[in-house]
Amino acid sequence: MKKTARAHTNIALIKYWGKADAKLRIPLMSSLSMTLDAFYTDTSLEIGEEDGFYLNGQFQYEESSRRVLAYLDFLREKYQINDKLIVKSQNHVPTSAGLASSSSAFAALAASFAAFYDLDLDKAQLSRLARMGSGSASRSIYGGFAIWQKGFDDASSYAFALDEEPDIDLQLLAVEINQNPKKISSTQGMQQAISSPFFKPWVERNEVELNEMVAAIRKKDFSKIGSIAELNANEMHAINLTAKPEFTYFEPNTIKAIKLVEKLRNDGLECYYTIDAGPNVKILTKLKNVKDIKEIFMKEFPNVNIISAGFGPGISILD
Amino acid sequence: MKKTARAHTNIALIKYWGKADAKLRIPLMSSLSMTLDAFYTDTSLEIGEEDGFYLNGQFQYEESSRRVLAYLDFLREKYQINDKLIVKSQNHVPTSAGLASSSSAFAALAASFAAFYDLDLDKAQLSRLARMGSGSASRSIYGGFAIWQKGFDDASSYAFALDEEPDIDLQLLAVEINQNPKKISSTQGMQQAISSPFFKPWVERNEVELNEMVAAIRKKDFSKIGSIAELNANEMHAINLTAKPEFTYFEPNTIKAIKLVEKLRNDGLECYYTIDAGPNVKILTKLKNVKDIKEIFMKEFPNVNIISAGFGPGISILD
Repeated sequence: MKKTARAHTNIALIKYWGKADAKLRIPLMSSLSMTLDAFYTDTSLEIGEEDGFYLNGQFQYEESSRRVLAYLDFLREKYQINDKLIVKSQNHVPTSAGLASSSSAFAALAASFAAFYDLDLDKAQLSRLARMGSGSASRSIYGGFAIWQKGFDDASSYAFALDEEPDIDLQLLAVEINQNPKKISSTQGMQQAISSPFFKPWVERNEVELNEMVAAIRKKDFSKIGSIAELNANEMHAINLTAKPEFTYFEPNTIKAIKLVEKLRNDGLECYYTIDAGPNVKILTKLKNVKDIKEIFMKEFPNVNIISAGFGPGISILD
Repeated sequence: MKKTARAHTNIALIKYWGKADAKLRIPLMSSLSMTLDAFYTDTSLEIGEEDGFYLNGQFQYEESSRRVLAYLDFLREKYQINDKLIVKSQNHVPTSAGLASSSSAFAALAASFAAFYDLDLDKAQLSRLARMGSGSASRSIYGGFAIWQKGFDDASSYAFALDEEPDIDLQLLAVEINQNPKKISSTQGMQQAISSPFFKPWVERNEVELNEMVAAIRKKDFSKIGSIAELNANEMHAINLTAKPEFTYFEPNTIKAIKLVEKLRNDGLECYYTIDAGPNVKILTKLKNVKDIKEIFMKEFPNVNIISAGFGPGISILD
């Protein structure tokens, strides 16, 4: 017997960057994301002789399996299950996309576990479960636009769908600047960010920013969606730049890409950027501009991969 | 008859970035600077048939002379003088240093005017006068460390000497990343910066930051001086990054230089950076490290000029 779930990655347009409770992964701010059709993870669960985690057909040892096995322990303890389990994940998130796969990975694992043990969870409960694997996974339960409401405890901190099938012309271009693992993990970055003098105003602004973004989405206002997302991402990076000690995920080519987006926008090819905890730049634009922007970026960054994505669906059980 | 004054440039370790009154150049925050021995401007004043401004022996037309001639008008109106004046400036601030010369230029011009007309101004009055030419010029009246107290009107906004001959081992390395004129002037940048959600906390922090820096200077604590200066510069650039619309003076090589400073510091070669309204990076370090840091930077940036400076003196009248 085996259960397989598919979850798509999401990109936060209003970022999660700061934890109220590290163990329970309760954030200091609510976040809002776009689920992406181009990137997903298929994860199956079955009973084995020993626990094991296979990624893209390869058995994962030690460090590479630790986080997944720890999450299995959490799930088994919560539901009082004693089985040894084999997790097999197929990651359809090219490393070269410069997108983190933990959102789709832990959403798919939570969903396959729930299906395997017939837990009969609603989506909010599944989102809570995914959150314990990776904060951003809470949002990958849903398609389209999702909001992870910060809440104040385990029961209240989960995502819900804002609009699972948005009728908005919005495309994302993932520009891979560097595919090396980042030197400062998100967990470490978030811890350090708290020391910024701008961290408190950043947290205090969250509600206003979220409301502005929801209003822009309801109005299908691409320019507003893009400019709010760009400002929100820059706030997060501004906080890192002013932490003690300061740090930045930007690399020289990140600045080059930022300036190119600004230039294209000023030249009438409307686009905006957002940047997660890494050097890679994601461009938000309309479908009609995708081809031109891709061509211009590929000229300026000859060795860089660019993948485009639209809205992706929520979680599904494949078999 | 002719009077010549010499003023040295200064680098702000606590930055001026925001105006309370644009016309009177009254800032929203107090700033603190180090006057630099390596860079200075000599300016002479004499009576002519017509107004004229010569820079490094070249007559300056139109745009290039406008700011200087407008400042002459202000000076003549204030002191009810009707002479036509010839200004001759010799700028010993290599373009390649990536340092703005307006601090030394307007300090030297104010001082030569005061000397020429025997105005009998004390240094605070001279600082106020220089401020009307360029805010940072108010600090170039003094050697060593100077503080420009923001004040609240023309009479109260001027610089004073914190320590004109500091007994601190502190050197500055000016790393020229790009010598093209910046696309966003300081005046425009300051106007735009006000729209950042972090602008208000930046202004509110000024007093605390200034006090911390004064304490570090009094303790001759190089590490503290360097790290406070670095954070303060990053705050200014974080504000630009989060303005509406966002902008940044950083270029790809600015990020490269920042990361190299971080690396050298982690490797035990203690240094810090500060960055003004432009892409160029200034490194703060101790005398014993200057040679090593210069060599390493020249390897990583083969086409870049690096000039070192120590504490410079205050204003002087040459003849």
